Amino acid sequence: MILVRQEIGEVLRDFRQQKGHTLRQVAGRASVALGYLSEVERGQKEASSEILASVADALDVPISTIMREVGDRISVLEGLPTFPDVVPDDLVAEVGTELSLR
Amino acid sequence: MILVRQEIGEVLRDFRQQKGHTLRQVAGRASVALGYLSEVERGQKEASSEILASVADALDVPISTIMREVGDRISVLEGLPTFPDVVPDDLVAEVGTELSLR
Repeated sequence: MILVRQEIGEVLRDFRQQKGHTLRQVAGRASVALGYLSEVERGQKEASSEILASVADALDVPISTIMREVGDRISVLEGLPTFPDVVPDDLVAEVGTELSLR
Repeated sequence: MILVRQEIGEVLRDFRQQKGHTLRQVAGRASVALGYLSEVERGQKEASSEILASVADALDVPISTIMREVGDRISVLEGLPTFPDVVPDDLVAEVGTELSLR
């Protein structure tokens, strides 16, 4: 079973580490207990919406960015296609043909 | 403060209604109490990851789809740009020109 809290935890930890913050720093800024934040990061505790907002704020990452990253990771776990960032070749060819016919 | 549970609740209700299911039907399939599901839909209760997985399964909607939709809605609330689903006109023109030059 895919558990959203595990992905949320990993995403929060990744953003924290990308920004070079320690657990202690983020817990302090977000006013949450260090042990609790650690459990959230390890997917062992559900973060309430208030805690999530507070931690996102402490990390200076929009909540939407966190939730989209969570969605993308779960999509991989579900074996669903992720949305490509590039325009598919077929579409490029089609649009190109239409434009060159004008 | 933006609360993820409110957006999750609205997204779950929207998918349920789109599929023409009643609260009772989804609660039954997901094996959760009807009153609890109703509170989750109204953003009054946090759904645990297990409940979320169970409700997503009952709705036949991937969890990733739910989380991405939640991310998109929060992005609007945060005043951030949403990612366009269409190819920008400039890019289409550019690609078109390149293709017609080949």
